[in-house]
Amino acid sequence: MTDERLSRQLAFIVEVDRLKGVLRQTSLIDGSRRENSAEHSWHLALAALALAEHAPAGTDLLRVLRMALVHDIVEIDAGDTFCYDAGANLDKEERETRAAERLFGVLPPDQAAEMRALWEEFEAGVTPDARFAIALDRLQPLLVNFNSGGGTWKLHGITHAQVLRRMAPIREGAPGVWPWVERAIEEACERGYVLGNGERGTGNG
Amino acid sequence: MTDERLSRQLAFIVEVDRLKGVLRQTSLIDGSRRENSAEHSWHLALAALALAEHAPAGTDLLRVLRMALVHDIVEIDAGDTFCYDAGANLDKEERETRAAERLFGVLPPDQAAEMRALWEEFEAGVTPDARFAIALDRLQPLLVNFNSGGGTWKLHGITHAQVLRRMAPIREGAPGVWPWVERAIEEACERGYVLGNGERGTGNG
Repeated sequence: MTDERLSRQLAFIVEVDRLKGVLRQTSLIDGSRRENSAEHSWHLALAALALAEHAPAGTDLLRVLRMALVHDIVEIDAGDTFCYDAGANLDKEERETRAAERLFGVLPPDQAAEMRALWEEFEAGVTPDARFAIALDRLQPLLVNFNSGGGTWKLHGITHAQVLRRMAPIREGAPGVWPWVERAIEEACERGYVLGNGERGTGNG
Repeated sequence: MTDERLSRQLAFIVEVDRLKGVLRQTSLIDGSRRENSAEHSWHLALAALALAEHAPAGTDLLRVLRMALVHDIVEIDAGDTFCYDAGANLDKEERETRAAERLFGVLPPDQAAEMRALWEEFEAGVTPDARFAIALDRLQPLLVNFNSGGGTWKLHGITHAQVLRRMAPIREGAPGVWPWVERAIEEACERGYVLGNGERGTGNG
């Protein structure tokens, strides 16, 4: 163990404190304020613990937790990109790749490579671990919006079809949860939280 | 899979959203506001990833992460108790035990028992997993205070001896980090972030 190695690990822990200052579009369930990406990441990891039995066959919970914990770190430099904003999503990849380079690069090289690979695996969404993590990353704001009177769906005039498309990865990523998700979206529509498909939406979906 | 079981899991995820509203004494490193217990739990889990190689022999990283994610959930009902406040710590155990009963009890019984056992293991601090988790739970506010001009140490007139006593679990819980911690506390004293042992402290340590 060199001092240099420990110094870089500690510098990384200090650096990522800034994720607590990155605001998402979603609010807390009590509606008191917008949620930040650090507490969202905690909520996601906790959801993985609570819902582990719904993961696809072959899922490794430790890897899912590692992904959940690091999946938003790039937002420290790249900012949070609202999922229903088509314009802002155009240069998202480039911004986030630069951010990953710098932020994970604070760590010793072996750990930087490892964390970056986890983030890339999450973004690619192909492995069972990444699919489960992505499913939860979609489910968490659904639970928030559904339990806070519509949240960002209502605020931005999101349609039933847009939500259904956004939540689609849950079907394969957490199959046991999907029937509940479908019912919740129907009910969100009935309650007026999301627009029916004949109504005017944002056009970004 | 019964609907009842899934409903309880989802209700738990919704319930623990309130941890984002529990404020700790420590601030963010940029000093902009106080930190909440949800984002602190994320930071702790991330520190476990970055510092895993410093854990005692026999540490299971998955169990450490699970502990880090659930260790503060009782604060939703019991509130955060400032570590240097001897008075408030007198009934902490009773308040937190009632909170654990109610909050973990939202989950299906097998998961409630499992999460409660993890929390109790953390509180007892005997196993290698708990020792490592506790060491990081002490290190995280040290990093915050050290990098934000003294933070709660300065605010509450905490002494060198109090900080040293508070950080002592790091010596066995994350042995590779301990020499750095000792140096950091010395330097915090030199910079005037903590009081020298001859100066007047809060008397709570």
